[in-house]
Parts: sequence; C-alpha cells; structure tokens
Amino acid sequence: MQDNIISALKNIVGQENVLTTKAELTPYTHAEFPIKRRIPAVIRPGSTAEVQQVVKLASDHALSLYPISTGKNWGYGSANPVRDDNLILDLSRMNRILEVNTELAYAVVQPGVTQQNFYDYLENNQTGLMMDPTGSGPSCSILGNSLERGYGITPHGDHFSFVCGLEVVLTDGEVLHTGFGHFENSKVDRVFKWGVGPYLDGLFTQSNFGIVTAMGVWLMPKPECIEACYFSCEREEDIYPLIDALRWLLQNNVIRSSINLAHRNRVLTMLMQYPWEQMKGKTPLDPQLALHLAAERKVGAWNGVCGIYGTKGEAKEAKKVVRKVLRGKVSRINFVSGTLLRFMEKYPGPLSLVTGMNVRELVKVIKPSFGILSGKPSEVSLASPYWRSRKKPPQSNINPVADNCGLYWFAPVVPMVQGHAREFINIVQTTLTRHGFEPCIMFSTVTERCFDCNLPILYDKEDPEQTRKAGECYEDVFGACMRAGYIPYRVGIQSMEQLVSKDDPFWKTVQRIKSALDPREILSPGRYCR
Amino acid sequence: MQDNIISALKNIVGQENVLTTKAELTPYTHAEFPIKRRIPAVIRPGSTAEVQQVVKLASDHALSLYPISTGKNWGYGSANPVRDDNLILDLSRMNRILEVNTELAYAVVQPGVTQQNFYDYLENNQTGLMMDPTGSGPSCSILGNSLERGYGITPHGDHFSFVCGLEVVLTDGEVLHTGFGHFENSKVDRVFKWGVGPYLDGLFTQSNFGIVTAMGVWLMPKPECIEACYFSCEREEDIYPLIDALRWLLQNNVIRSSINLAHRNRVLTMLMQYPWEQMKGKTPLDPQLALHLAAERKVGAWNGVCGIYGTKGEAKEAKKVVRKVLRGKVSRINFVSGTLLRFMEKYPGPLSLVTGMNVRELVKVIKPSFGILSGKPSEVSLASPYWRSRKKPPQSNINPVADNCGLYWFAPVVPMVQGHAREFINIVQTTLTRHGFEPCIMFSTVTERCFDCNLPILYDKEDPEQTRKAGECYEDVFGACMRAGYIPYRVGIQSMEQLVSKDDPFWKTVQRIKSALDPREILSPGRYCR
Repeated sequence: MQDNIISALKNIVGQENVLTTKAELTPYTHAEFPIKRRIPAVIRPGSTAEVQQVVKLASDHALSLYPISTGKNWGYGSANPVRDDNLILDLSRMNRILEVNTELAYAVVQPGVTQQNFYDYLENNQTGLMMDPTGSGPSCSILGNSLERGYGITPHGDHFSFVCGLEVVLTDGEVLHTGFGHFENSKVDRVFKWGVGPYLDGLFTQSNFGIVTAMGVWLMPKPECIEACYFSCEREEDIYPLIDALRWLLQNNVIRSSINLAHRNRVLTMLMQYPWEQMKGKTPLDPQLALHLAAERKVGAWNGVCGIYGTKGEAKEAKKVVRKVLRGKVSRINFVSGTLLRFMEKYPGPLSLVTGMNVRELVKVIKPSFGILSGKPSEVSLASPYWRSRKKPPQSNINPVADNCGLYWFAPVVPMVQGHAREFINIVQTTLTRHGFEPCIMFSTVTERCFDCNLPILYDKEDPEQTRKAGECYEDVFGACMRAGYIPYRVGIQSMEQLVSKDDPFWKTVQRIKSALDPREILSPGRYCR
Repeated sequence: MQDNIISALKNIVGQENVLTTKAELTPYTHAEFPIKRRIPAVIRPGSTAEVQQVVKLASDHALSLYPISTGKNWGYGSANPVRDDNLILDLSRMNRILEVNTELAYAVVQPGVTQQNFYDYLENNQTGLMMDPTGSGPSCSILGNSLERGYGITPHGDHFSFVCGLEVVLTDGEVLHTGFGHFENSKVDRVFKWGVGPYLDGLFTQSNFGIVTAMGVWLMPKPECIEACYFSCEREEDIYPLIDALRWLLQNNVIRSSINLAHRNRVLTMLMQYPWEQMKGKTPLDPQLALHLAAERKVGAWNGVCGIYGTKGEAKEAKKVVRKVLRGKVSRINFVSGTLLRFMEKYPGPLSLVTGMNVRELVKVIKPSFGILSGKPSEVSLASPYWRSRKKPPQSNINPVADNCGLYWFAPVVPMVQGHAREFINIVQTTLTRHGFEPCIMFSTVTERCFDCNLPILYDKEDPEQTRKAGECYEDVFGACMRAGYIPYRVGIQSMEQLVSKDDPFWKTVQRIKSALDPREILSPGRYCR
C-alpha cells in the first residue's frame, strides 16, 4: 500500500482509524477455518460522509474495499474478504440508533449497532418493542445480519422481510435511499418497504453492489404473553411424522414463531464439550455413548423449541391446538412462561425435591432460549464451536474465533416434507460420519414451507489432521447437497465463487448489474459474484 | 410497421395472433381516462419460447415491446403503453397453471391465469388451498397484479410478499430463473424466495427490465374458520381514535387479514349510482343528501371490514379481543360466519321479519365481501366506476372500461397514525371537493404500519367538462400528496415519468440497471423509468 494513499485515508477518517500493524489486523484475520488473506489496512470511518470520501478515493486509485459491519460472520469467514488485497472497511464505529418510533414500531440503525446495544436501548427506554435476535451472539450487527439474510426464531425471524428502507453509498460516492426514502418530504419511508418503481433493496443483500450505511427495521410490540414450548421425540425416525404436524401448525399460523428442531448431537454440543476422556482421545463420538450422554441430560433424538405469542386467551388456545396436533408425535411437551421461569429461578431447591429434576441446571438451559424467544440476545449458541476444542468456553464474552475454535457453517434449505427431509438427513449423516465428524443437524423453519438446516462442522483447529478433514468434509457435504438440490441460503467466503456459473443467466444478470453499479469493481470482489 | 416485420412476427406466433386492424386493437386502447396511443400491433405469443423469439426480433429491429398479462390495469391506463409506437405483447394466451403443490401450499402460474381460472382450479381440484383475490375482478391476472405489487385483504394480501421464484425472458432472449430456480436439480425453488446471492425478484416488479413468463405463488391452506367482521362509526371524526385501535390489533396479530376502512361516499358508490334525479343533474353530491342516502342504507361515516381466521377456538378468542379493543370506538360491530350467511340466504323472509332488516339486500352486499375474505374473486368493486355513468353496471362480466366509465385510481400511502391520517384526509377532501368530485376514500392496511388509500376519481367520461375536470383533479391531488410526502405505492401510466427525478441517485440507479439489462431499450419505454 502506497504511503500517500494511507495518508489520504488518515486524512479522511483520522490517524487512529487506519490500522496497518500486524497486531491491529489480527482480530480481522482470525477465522474458524484456514484462511490467509493479505490485508493492506483496515479503515474505520465514522460517518456516511467519510464512507463516501473513502469510496471516491478507492475509485480514483482502483483500490478494493471490503465493507464489514462488525465482522462477526462466524463460521462463514468472519471479517475476512473473499480475495486478497482488499482494504477492510470496518463500519463498527457507525453505531448509532438513528430513530426509534414506538407508535409505528420501527427503528433505523447504523451498521455498528450490535444486538446487545439495540436490546439495551429498547429495554432501557421502555419502548415496549422487541427485536429478533439471531443466534450469533450479542456482539453481532443487526444490519450486517439482515443483509446476509440471517434469521432468528421470533415471529420477526426472517430478518430481511422486516427491513424497510436502506441508505446505500454507491461506488460513485453518491448516497441512494431505497423504498420511499428518496422522495423529498416522504413521510412513508419506514412504513412501507416496496416504494414505487422497482424494488431495489434485495440487490444490496448477499452482494457487492453498494455499502449500506443505515437500515430501517420493523419491530414487534411485546405481546401480553410469551411462552416457550419445548418438545422432543425418542427415536431418530420420529422426526418424519412430526414434520407434517409442524408444517400444519406453521401454515395455519398457530405457531407464529419459527421452530428449531435439533438433533441429539447438536444439543450435546451446546450442553457440554467433547468427552475426550471417555472417548480416550478418539473421534468421532461413539453413537452408544451419545445415547447415554443424551439420556443423562434428558435429551431426545430430536428436540424442538418454539414460541407462543399473543394475548393470554390466544396463547391458551394456541397451546391447546399445539398439544392436540403433536399428540402421539412427541414423547414430551412442555410450556414455560416467564412466571414459571422466575419461580424456578427463585426456588430451585424445593422444586428439585418435588420434581426429581435438577432445576438449577434446567434454568441454566431454558433461560437463554426463553430470552431469545423474548427478544434478548444470548451467547447460548456460541458454546458449540468449543465442542472439540481443548479450551473451555468462557462464562461470558465468548469469542470462538479468538479462541481458535474450528467451525464451518453450512446452511442448506430443505422442503418441509418427509421425503426430502429423509433424503437430506441421509446425505448429511453419511457424509459427516465418513469424515469422522458428528452430524449436528438443527432444522429451523425459516418459512412455512422449508427448513434451513444450520449444520456446523465442529473440529479441533489446533489439530492439523482434523483441520484438513474438516475442510474436505465441508467440500463433500456442500457438493453432495448441491447435487441433490438442497441449496444453501448463504455461504462462507470460500464457497462464493463456486456458486457462480458463468453461463447461467442469473449470474450473468448479477454480473451486468455489478458492472453497471460498480464499473471499476472496487467493492468486495468475488462476494457472491465471479 | 414494415410488412416484413409483421410477417416475421406471424411466423413466430401464428397468423391469428398478430392483431393489426382497428377493430382488433380497440379493446387494447380503451381506457378510463383520455389516452390515445399509436399501437402498431398486438402480438399474442403462446409460450416462453415464442416470447424469446419475439424479443430477439424486437432487439434486431429496435422495436419497442409493451408486455401485458391480461391488460386489466383499470384506472391506471389499462392495457395502454406509456409511450407511442409500442407493440403490445399480450401474454394472456399463456394461461396455464404449471404446478400446484397442496402439501407445500404453492402454485406456479403463467401471466394469463386469471383470478377466476385460479380460484376454479383450486376449488374444482379440492386442493384445500385459497388464494388472495384483489378487488379488480375475476378476469384480472394473478401474475400481473403481483408484479404491480397489488394487494388484497386476506392474510396473503400483500401479493409480492408471497411470490416465490420468477421465470423472466431477458432482452437478449435468454431465460432467467430467480431465487433458487436457476440451480440445476434445485428442490427448493418454490419454498424459499430469497435464493442465494442478490435477491433480484424486486427488479421485475413495477419496472421494464424483463418479461415475466411464470411465477411461483404461496397459497394459504383454508383455515377451519373464517368470519367476516363488519364495523362502522357514525361521525367523520371517529376514525382517529379508531386508527390507534386498529393498529394495535394488527401489530399484535389479532387480526391477520388487512382491514378496509371505507368512507361513506365510497360505500355509496358501491351500492348505487349517482342520484342524478335527486341532484337535478348537478354535481358534486350534496353532503346532506349523502348523509340521507347513507342512513337509508345503514352506512356509517367510516365502515370497516376485515377477516378473522383460525381454528374455531382461535377465532372465538380473536373476536373477543376485537370486540374489547373496538369498544367505544365503533357504533356497530358484527361478525358473520359462513354458516350465518347460508342461513340468511335460505330464510331471508322470516329473518327480515324478525330483525326488521332487508335480509335479501343484506346478503347481496355481504356475500361478495365474505367471498373475497374466503379467497373467491368478485366483481363487487367494479360497480364503483359506474357511479357517475348513465349506464347501469351489468349483472355480471362487468367491464367498466368497455362501458366507457370514467375512473382515475390514485393510491398514496399514509402512516397508520392519527396525525398523518388527519392531514391526508384534509388534503384529499379539500382537493376533490374543489374540483367537484366526491372524495371516496378507502383505507387498506397494506402493512401493520400504514394504510394505502385507494382513492378513485369517478366521473362521467361521456361529459367532456367532467372529463377535463377529473384530469385536473387527478393532477392536483397527485401533486398535493407528493408535496406532503404521501407517496403512491403504484401509479398510472400518465404519472410514471413524473415520478422520476433525473438527479436522484435512486432513479439514476434504476437507469443504470435498465441500460445494463435492456441496452437497446426495447421493453416498455417510460414504465417507471425515464
């Protein structure tokens, strides 16, 4: 990187916001699988105006910029660019909540607003509104997750569906407002997302066409009643009839949240670390031991969680219908209200005596998932990456990347019908087992018609052999699912170029739009694009 | 048009599918306000392959094509192109329902599939699924309405939200499949709409970037229970506190459908024609007479309708909550179930005696709106354009355009809060009254945060003076709402170029995409574009 460019960048964002030393860059280059990117510098603009100036400079000097919000794209490459020699444009200093409208239940946020910041703001200001947290933890960006089309489990789980209006810095340095936001005097830019004329917002998700510097997001008023529903079934095969029942409940809007359905293996990775001692250092986990560990923890073959939302009367009725529809399809079903949870927290001893269960442990497990259903971000999912690590996950501020945990995320979509689920589970179980990894399937109902399977490949990144195997396993399961037609909703930086087929009119169209909006190709080269 | 081009077109689509005589073109040039377009010919391809060939020919000879689905864009210009000298590409022969999946509740339709065709198919094949009908009548296209981002009133009312996967003929003649549809072997193209990589579907709505030849659409399983809820309030002012209550019911998902809230004037236009005799030929309608006519028909100042959907228990609970929340805010509230409606139809005489109401008349009014809430398209809204016409609307196959009715639609978006509603109503009432037209406001809750006001300007198109005034009135109310920031969600062909500001980065981006995807500008010049 030429000194004059570094100076010019420092002039724009301030000396302390251009990072170039190895120590400064390390947090950005860390990842959960082997990547080594040459990164000349990290630029940390503090405003949209600064972003515009950086973009103009980049355009003049044909520099590549790789914008990140907070860079917590864990399991997908974290903050790393797709290619070498990109300047990372770290937008985390732009962390203002620009507007909250409690009457109309929306907010406008900058890229650096984290789940925790946002949650705190909504609570501390008694807005009566709740957000939908994604599983990636309190420090991840609301905006970044929405643009990657991430999801959560509350009724506002499909994040991009609840985005209303973007502010985008284009590569010519101009600022585009989508939806109705570009009309002078508009009073409707946060209440209706399509605007008039072509709907452009989709272009700025999973792409490299512009830099989103603000986003409107629709929020949910806290309902009178939230209850968590936990259910499980005993045998692996029990999932198939259950799928029909869950689809019915979702399509009929009895369950308004998403449903997570986790395989035994996956639940174990959240509750404990790999039993190295019992396994005498061998991998993968012995299926009999898995059964035993699960039984000890009262974990079924498949374990479901979803939320019940509404007035008290609605919740009561929904629970009745859920019980009726799931009868005979699950071996256990429990509803937990906030009141019950507080009671359990207060009297764990006596309750344990009465129920014969370890209520203190139970609360530890239930509380975070109940929190997520109520809009409170949690670190509960961040323990999984430590499954095969020799380090223990810390009690708080878990950072699996900094702790060098090994993790690939793979997230293919599967139609919510028995036949496809069977074919898909078979592919995943066969492939992961062959490579020596535990298939840790979790299905999330991202629409009323499909699951997204969020499948981690968990490995010990300190072990070169496991690291190599994990990479091969990822490529194999990726290829097998693509061939079978179960396409991921999102991919890591290592797979983006692999998705793109040069002769496909879809990707040709993407390329044409790229050339039109970023003729010098300064933004995130290779990101969902060839 | 050169003879050799006409011959080439006939070779592609068949002799009988190239229309050039005045008589053949007349149904296409009819409109509800003064437009005269030079249209060299109408081409009626029968397949995607034929569309591709026509596009290649058009590209080679720099011809402009204006695709329509069924051309029933009533009140917005009908089938007429935005500019002169476009060949109309009428896709109505492509009227196949390509797929219906009852388990996953979706269908795939071609542009020519009308609401009535689709409804009949779903009923006759006992699919157990329902569609969302838009108000524009049985002969309008499902696909065309979705691409214009039209709406209905059931829980699937926001049509574009329920579109999953498009087939698009691009101007180079290639066929693009959006979402997951372009991946070989994909099993997930109709169950998840975003696909992976940029989401492009929005580009093909309210635009001129490609020709959509097939569309996936998500359907709703028929719920156990559907009830219509009718309510009204007496005074004009009563709408304001009502707005807060309705917003609460929607944001809390107690009401899962949209809510239509119609002003007295609007309801009168649906129930009767202008009382020329009583008004001694004068316009506009005397407010005292309006009050009197409304009272006779038991029509309030504001009249609401929405649907209750769910299991019997859910519906019961929802009704309880709706009653509670609307208490004191409405003067009348009634729920009508299918059973009650059938009973009223069967015993109108005795019921009239008991209730003192004209039950036969009541059934005539309620049945179509109950039908729409249950997914059955209806002509109920098509009577309004005859309000000031001297012709009577026919009993069926209503075609207000062929009958030369005068109608402009204007559909601005208004935040669902008291202050904005007040400012907006004031603008509309002042402007329409000043020009001598009845303000016939209907608010539809197209999101949980806003109304779309679908406002017709109804006039006697046989009267040149009224026609002139109506045009001026449209321009005035359009301008006043734009200045005040209440932007329309969709516009007629006469306003499309007016929306576009050359210096706005939004429209510049639209233009760049247009140039990238349609470099020779052969598609619908001027359509939401300059």
